[in-house]
Amino acid sequence: MSFARKDYEFLKEIGLGPRNLGSYVNGVWQGNGPVVSSVNPADNQTIAEIAAPSIQDYEEGIQACVEATKIWMQIPAPKRGEFVRQIGDALRAKLHYLGRLLSLEVGKILAEGIGEVQEVIDMCDFAVGLSRQLNGSVIPSERPNHMMLEMWNPLGIVGVITAFNFPCAVLGWNACIALVCGNSVVWKGAPTTPLITIAMTKIIAGVLEKNNLPGAIFTAFCGGAEIGQAIAKDSRIPLVSFTGSSKVGLMVRQTVSQRYGKCLLELSGNNAIIIMDDADIELAVPSVLFAAVGTAGQRCTTCRRLLLHESIYRKVLDRLVDVYKQVKIGNPLEKGTLLGPLHTPASRENFVKGIEKIKSQGGKIAVGGSVIEREGNFVQPTIVEISPSADVVKEELFGPVLYVMKFQTLNEAIEINNSVPQGLSSSIFTRKPEIIFKWIGPQGSDCGIVNVNIPTNGAEIGGAFGGEKATGGGREAGSDSWKQYMRRSTCTINYGSELPLAQGINFG
Amino acid sequence: MSFARKDYEFLKEIGLGPRNLGSYVNGVWQGNGPVVSSVNPADNQTIAEIAAPSIQDYEEGIQACVEATKIWMQIPAPKRGEFVRQIGDALRAKLHYLGRLLSLEVGKILAEGIGEVQEVIDMCDFAVGLSRQLNGSVIPSERPNHMMLEMWNPLGIVGVITAFNFPCAVLGWNACIALVCGNSVVWKGAPTTPLITIAMTKIIAGVLEKNNLPGAIFTAFCGGAEIGQAIAKDSRIPLVSFTGSSKVGLMVRQTVSQRYGKCLLELSGNNAIIIMDDADIELAVPSVLFAAVGTAGQRCTTCRRLLLHESIYRKVLDRLVDVYKQVKIGNPLEKGTLLGPLHTPASRENFVKGIEKIKSQGGKIAVGGSVIEREGNFVQPTIVEISPSADVVKEELFGPVLYVMKFQTLNEAIEINNSVPQGLSSSIFTRKPEIIFKWIGPQGSDCGIVNVNIPTNGAEIGGAFGGEKATGGGREAGSDSWKQYMRRSTCTINYGSELPLAQGINFG
Amino acid sequence: MSFARKDYEFLKEIGLGPRNLGSYVNGVWQGNGPVVSSVNPADNQTIAEIAAPSIQDYEEGIQACVEATKIWMQIPAPKRGEFVRQIGDALRAKLHYLGRLLSLEVGKILAEGIGEVQEVIDMCDFAVGLSRQLNGSVIPSERPNHMMLEMWNPLGIVGVITAFNFPCAVLGWNACIALVCGNSVVWKGAPTTPLITIAMTKIIAGVLEKNNLPGAIFTAFCGGAEIGQAIAKDSRIPLVSFTGSSKVGLMVRQTVSQRYGKCLLELSGNNAIIIMDDADIELAVPSVLFAAVGTAGQRCTTCRRLLLHESIYRKVLDRLVDVYKQVKIGNPLEKGTLLGPLHTPASRENFVKGIEKIKSQGGKIAVGGSVIEREGNFVQPTIVEISPSADVVKEELFGPVLYVMKFQTLNEAIEINNSVPQGLSSSIFTRKPEIIFKWIGPQGSDCGIVNVNIPTNGAEIGGAFGGEKATGGGREAGSDSWKQYMRRSTCTINYGSELPLAQGINFG
Amino acid sequence: MSFARKDYEFLKEIGLGPRNLGSYVNGVWQGNGPVVSSVNPADNQTIAEIAAPSIQDYEEGIQACVEATKIWMQIPAPKRGEFVRQIGDALRAKLHYLGRLLSLEVGKILAEGIGEVQEVIDMCDFAVGLSRQLNGSVIPSERPNHMMLEMWNPLGIVGVITAFNFPCAVLGWNACIALVCGNSVVWKGAPTTPLITIAMTKIIAGVLEKNNLPGAIFTAFCGGAEIGQAIAKDSRIPLVSFTGSSKVGLMVRQTVSQRYGKCLLELSGNNAIIIMDDADIELAVPSVLFAAVGTAGQRCTTCRRLLLHESIYRKVLDRLVDVYKQVKIGNPLEKGTLLGPLHTPASRENFVKGIEKIKSQGGKIAVGGSVIEREGNFVQPTIVEISPSADVVKEELFGPVLYVMKFQTLNEAIEINNSVPQGLSSSIFTRKPEIIFKWIGPQGSDCGIVNVNIPTNGAEIGGAFGGEKATGGGREAGSDSWKQYMRRSTCTINYGSELPLAQGINFG
Repeated sequence: MSFARKDYEFLKEIGLGPRNLGSYVNGVWQGNGPVVSSVNPADNQTIAEIAAPSIQDYEEGIQACVEATKIWMQIPAPKRGEFVRQIGDALRAKLHYLGRLLSLEVGKILAEGIGEVQEVIDMCDFAVGLSRQLNGSVIPSERPNHMMLEMWNPLGIVGVITAFNFPCAVLGWNACIALVCGNSVVWKGAPTTPLITIAMTKIIAGVLEKNNLPGAIFTAFCGGAEIGQAIAKDSRIPLVSFTGSSKVGLMVRQTVSQRYGKCLLELSGNNAIIIMDDADIELAVPSVLFAAVGTAGQRCTTCRRLLLHESIYRKVLDRLVDVYKQVKIGNPLEKGTLLGPLHTPASRENFVKGIEKIKSQGGKIAVGGSVIEREGNFVQPTIVEISPSADVVKEELFGPVLYVMKFQTLNEAIEINNSVPQGLSSSIFTRKPEIIFKWIGPQGSDCGIVNVNIPTNGAEIGGAFGGEKATGGGREAGSDSWKQYMRRSTCTINYGSELPLAQGINFG
Repeated sequence: MSFARKDYEFLKEIGLGPRNLGSYVNGVWQGNGPVVSSVNPADNQTIAEIAAPSIQDYEEGIQACVEATKIWMQIPAPKRGEFVRQIGDALRAKLHYLGRLLSLEVGKILAEGIGEVQEVIDMCDFAVGLSRQLNGSVIPSERPNHMMLEMWNPLGIVGVITAFNFPCAVLGWNACIALVCGNSVVWKGAPTTPLITIAMTKIIAGVLEKNNLPGAIFTAFCGGAEIGQAIAKDSRIPLVSFTGSSKVGLMVRQTVSQRYGKCLLELSGNNAIIIMDDADIELAVPSVLFAAVGTAGQRCTTCRRLLLHESIYRKVLDRLVDVYKQVKIGNPLEKGTLLGPLHTPASRENFVKGIEKIKSQGGKIAVGGSVIEREGNFVQPTIVEISPSADVVKEELFGPVLYVMKFQTLNEAIEINNSVPQGLSSSIFTRKPEIIFKWIGPQGSDCGIVNVNIPTNGAEIGGAFGGEKATGGGREAGSDSWKQYMRRSTCTINYGSELPLAQGINFG
Repeated sequence: MSFARKDYEFLKEIGLGPRNLGSYVNGVWQGNGPVVSSVNPADNQTIAEIAAPSIQDYEEGIQACVEATKIWMQIPAPKRGEFVRQIGDALRAKLHYLGRLLSLEVGKILAEGIGEVQEVIDMCDFAVGLSRQLNGSVIPSERPNHMMLEMWNPLGIVGVITAFNFPCAVLGWNACIALVCGNSVVWKGAPTTPLITIAMTKIIAGVLEKNNLPGAIFTAFCGGAEIGQAIAKDSRIPLVSFTGSSKVGLMVRQTVSQRYGKCLLELSGNNAIIIMDDADIELAVPSVLFAAVGTAGQRCTTCRRLLLHESIYRKVLDRLVDVYKQVKIGNPLEKGTLLGPLHTPASRENFVKGIEKIKSQGGKIAVGGSVIEREGNFVQPTIVEISPSADVVKEELFGPVLYVMKFQTLNEAIEINNSVPQGLSSSIFTRKPEIIFKWIGPQGSDCGIVNVNIPTNGAEIGGAFGGEKATGGGREAGSDSWKQYMRRSTCTINYGSELPLAQGINFG
Repeated sequence: MSFARKDYEFLKEIGLGPRNLGSYVNGVWQGNGPVVSSVNPADNQTIAEIAAPSIQDYEEGIQACVEATKIWMQIPAPKRGEFVRQIGDALRAKLHYLGRLLSLEVGKILAEGIGEVQEVIDMCDFAVGLSRQLNGSVIPSERPNHMMLEMWNPLGIVGVITAFNFPCAVLGWNACIALVCGNSVVWKGAPTTPLITIAMTKIIAGVLEKNNLPGAIFTAFCGGAEIGQAIAKDSRIPLVSFTGSSKVGLMVRQTVSQRYGKCLLELSGNNAIIIMDDADIELAVPSVLFAAVGTAGQRCTTCRRLLLHESIYRKVLDRLVDVYKQVKIGNPLEKGTLLGPLHTPASRENFVKGIEKIKSQGGKIAVGGSVIEREGNFVQPTIVEISPSADVVKEELFGPVLYVMKFQTLNEAIEINNSVPQGLSSSIFTRKPEIIFKWIGPQGSDCGIVNVNIPTNGAEIGGAFGGEKATGGGREAGSDSWKQYMRRSTCTINYGSELPLAQGINFG
């Protein structure tokens, strides 16, 4: 059987066909739910079809996963690391095909598609090293003949619910760490990126099979809200890692809390770049462009607010308007394209509504502001001059819309930066140490990512990724993020024959 | 003015009188709410009266605290440590008076009262050292001329809501760390231990005043549920540390989550001791006694379930029944007393209801089971033989009631240990390394505290204190608990003049 | 040109021929010194010839290395990690050939040869992860507007001098870490294992070339003492990592110290296994066999002393004598062989002298004690009963000779264990926690490696490898060993406009 | 008996008299060597007399110390921390007397004397916290049923040999950490500061006695080179911490290495301040003054070289000459004095010789250059213009002599900074981030202390103190310096019943 378009044939190299089964359950591909389509956002035509999972598929998957987890958590961590290394190698072998698929199904430009898969590969390599460093502690006890240990043990099953905009990277952040930590993974990809869910899962499944490991260690569903809710409610899943909007994330958290489970949340951002009067404009302008227009403004780290010092306001704005006009819009797989389509028709509609709201709140369109009349969900990259007090700037409009505001002092700029409910990413452009260190200190940005002279987006995996406030507080990828995927026990072992009590208490 | 009883006169040494103002707001003692009484649980007579805070007192306090926090977070951490050191010294000077007050107002025996204050002193010393070690990281960046830092900054205000059973220690765990981390503290003590709230606050306030620091850095309320709810809802308080029941804790979490705030929860425990056939019985029996009867069974780490290997079941049970019969019950301030009263008449009533329920579910009283007919809230230390499948053993009955169960294999014992909703503390008595290491490993106890040859209670401050599942997942005191009192920023500083992107992406 | 023996032809797969150039200098293979031979210890016939380096080759190499280092240390650590990952993959592709070469040139059995190469591969994987975790610290400053950082920077050139017995693994421990840390490596392999030096270097050089990196980042010499001394004296080499005897190691240290350089020393071991009366003999006997006979007793971690509790002395000794008699001796490449030849005729001669000395000091041969009359340097695996006070047991006799001694109490056993000048490895066999924790505590073994129920040899790379006292104090491979390959700077940055002094000093 | 001068009477408050016993051995004060004098450097008159220790006193002391160590290392670390806390409190009570003594006997100004004692107090507080954080690690093992631990155990006895210029602080750095780590301390103070040695020891001894601990845990000698050599040679002392010149330090290291002992060296510095063209001169000038003239130039961190950018060379030099002329010279105890005497007549003579040598190598005296003709060892604060290639600038002249040099580029300045054998401290004054981060990075300063906009001296205890190259490589005080006072064991515990080998080796 062939794909509708000849240039989709490459998908066969990564295990995809025109019809695909949409869940990987106990090592078997199946799909007993409705048939759904994967759609190309550049033309809104079907790429391929998927037999989605039913809730019975889900139940079957989790049951198998519970059993597989018992085996997996007993395998020594460095051996688990070896499997993750093999996953990295398997991804490396398919890097370009996967990158191409990302570009096709999400709509992001090819360089970003490949970069995203590279990020998962980097995560694999990082996790391999980590597999020998999931260190607990030996802590001095105040009691003689007592040994105090802080142990880190696997949680069990980690549920991972990812969004359309980073369908690979976010899985990579979670799964690589979760797996070396000894957890099984249950993945629900975004409903609009089922082919990526399937392709990634096939690669991982291949490694498990080659090593005679139970496939149920990695269980995947191309499902929608029903599967997501099942995961949130499922007390067999101690940790749910969710990426999405603050609104949905809060619902997930409340549901998971109700059963005393844990959440790791990566929710909405509303990220500002501050440009000080002493900034290097040559560095700042392309940074803003990448941060605001990259991925069509559909990153959680997309720059949505640009705070310009009054003394350079006009100059920078003019430069940006100029640059925006030259942005090449079109097929994201084509060389030179910087701006592809929005992901869905609904996103495009949302853009239209957003622009109306902006105007109604006094926003002045400096450039862009319209949809593009062609097939696919294309819109213009847009700059809006607006007051920081407008309500609309407190919200995340998921598209290439940048709000520009003016400030007079550093303190004012920081106050505006911190004045929104979200707390993901933030950047400042300056060359003054006193500003840099204030910005990253107690009275600076209140975000989880605090940059200087680089855009709000484009994090490295070695650091912890995530944000504060309505962004949800989770941290993924590097640093000690792995601790969230394990449970900590404070263990005190008395190997003597007496019973001294802490704080010198004498009882009886 | 004098206290009702002459032996209460010592309270004057720690700043208490027969009438007291119940809130410390912006450095001033006030109380515009109703007058309430502190009651001695050994006789249910009033010790002293307190003018409770009104909600206006609360609002005034928080407003001042917001301002004071701006000052406090700018003081270098080692200087903040110096103030905490002085608090420790001030407590040391009043150790015995404070211990005595604890015994009087809570009802715990004097040794435990003094031990609890000692724990706060230990926390102060620990926090002083920590004030030079709240270390962030310098992480290698993949980009040339980039510096990646993980910074830890103060959160702002930390709300601390404590329970009656550890009115000092839990405040100490939270406040010592919160303060060196650069946060202000808003404390709501338990409504039934207002004198302790006032006495502790007076000592801390004294240090702040001596150093000309704003009193609002430490704000305290002898309030009830109304103040608690105000804290939970207050978006000026980014972190709420709550100690209490799982039920109330869940409500706090949902309320705080709603405003995207953070919680640190120390909730119910349902802690088991497992005694293996090879255990040292001489060590195990007094451990069980301390764990089950200490603090009248009103610790969150109290042993509530005793799992005995069938081969030593009868022997250990007989020994325990013997020992229980010799427990000296009475005035907790009297030398030799091991068991004081329950904290309130309601607790005593709860005990009565609990025993009825136990009986109705097949529990067999081996010893105790009745209230003691005298003034005060005294009950008998009680041992019950019961099946692990009885519903009642899944719940936390806050009193000196121990459920005894029989098992055949280690796996069965671990399964019973892990079969309750709570996950705070757990112990095993054995001398076999294969059992010890299994117990603390991935297939062992699922609790936050996992002990060997010591009781479930009596943690050292150097380790992290807290538990999993319905216990809430928070960790207090030692290890890296301090990180919960700070916000983490991943900072990338570009000090070069070019803009390389992570994952080698080429944009534009 | 062909090899003397047809079964040496496989060497061509790893870049070796009958004649080889013995130094890799500035990316070029050369050798202006005398021609030397690589000899098969199983028959003392030449395998191939090598043109050894002259001192001019050395000088040329170091000069190029100095320049290459300036480039290498500027490449971001995660990128350096990527090259090390590629080295790991290149080794993986040649694992079996390299293992075979190790077996051939060193004389160790094939399983150990392959295991040793695997260890280098493991080190590469570990180092890749480490390349994003060479973390410095952000330390709270006591001064306002000051930032205190602990930075880790590369040292420059690391000299690595390895011994014949682990010609790959020790290079791997050092080079993998040194390279990700940003250092160049100058390697001098053992004079008797030149083919391994060349084969390993070719693989690494291949990766450098493929990535257009200067070859001089890795500089290698098949040289002898002259090159070794040149490295020790060379002030362009801030760190010399030396593996060998305590005697030569001390000379290296004194030479390097004279120029205020640093040493990382892995010197002699004299490792004991203690078997307690409660030990699992089924576990202990094969452990002793592997530890004492493996690698023909030529590991630095070889068990040389066996301390038996008097109650099981005879039983264990008899079992060992039995087992020793069944050890298959012969060609190390042959399946089933457990004991190959000693590395050189000199080693064999040393064995003969050692046995004489042992006898003269009252040692009683329980089994073995003779050389084997056939081609190659074969000797019998030997067990000697001897007093712990004999002088000979304080020395390291590099061959398969095991001293057996009797003890009565744990304290006595620990005292004997600690009574030798060396402090590398040590093991105890017991099932009692009180013994285990004493053994690893302040009053237990004084060695760098302290095992329980496993042999003295066979370390994992995740831990730090090395020993105390005459073993030299260095630590290689895992844990924080990487810190030895970097220089630490305590950096304080004042970004304010005032000059507060530490300790509150007021000056002027 | 009275002191020669009435204003010495305060010494009685800290346990000193006109005649004193000069060693604290096994808890007893004694002195069987010659009688020596403590001399006031401000007038070269005797302050008091001391009966110095004989080598027999030494031997007696070490023997007792060996025994005491066995007890001390068994006391849990947090309890050891409690004793160190009490030492801190005892010092706090005598802070001003001790500071005054420091000023009197060393010759440093009072503010610095008090600051130095404060530093020891800070170290005590820091060490108390550390006593619950001397953490080992639990490292994931690659073998099932194996537990890998990294344990840190005490070394035994730590020998501490201190210099005259920081007779308290250096003891504090070493002793506080050594003690909480479980080591005993053997202290040899400088021969010219015996009263400080005695006074400090009395305070520590008082705490030991109060707690019924063996006095031999802290053993002290007011001795000279003979005692120093005895410590270096003594194989009962596994670690010798030495502070002094590079020349003597090297001898100590070679002696200690000969017996395979460890050294912790704090040797000569030759510290530069670089002032860039963009520097804040108002900050730089007082920094240079404090760094070059403070402690009469007798700190190991004293600034000895001032590198001025050519564009601000004349301006800064003129400002400094001006400031130098106003420095108040005189009795260090007098208010307002900034420059006291050199420590000994020999130091003064050394100054004279140094100035001659400087002149002979082309140095041009900008200000100062002469001794001051009055009683005591006073010299003028001196600035010399000189070429960076003059030999004399490679050496440490221990007095208030500052070499000023000119440079054109940052690279040139860094090259000059790094061109001396020593590598202790260094500073740069600039406001440019690209310079700051280069300076602290791989191609910046090669020193252990790398400052920005603060002087070379005045370190905080939270960081690690020490330097590279001829400065000896040791690190004291904060960060992970404590690890040098402990021995590390990599422990692998097999708690299963099988024997898997690392690297998957199959043996027999």
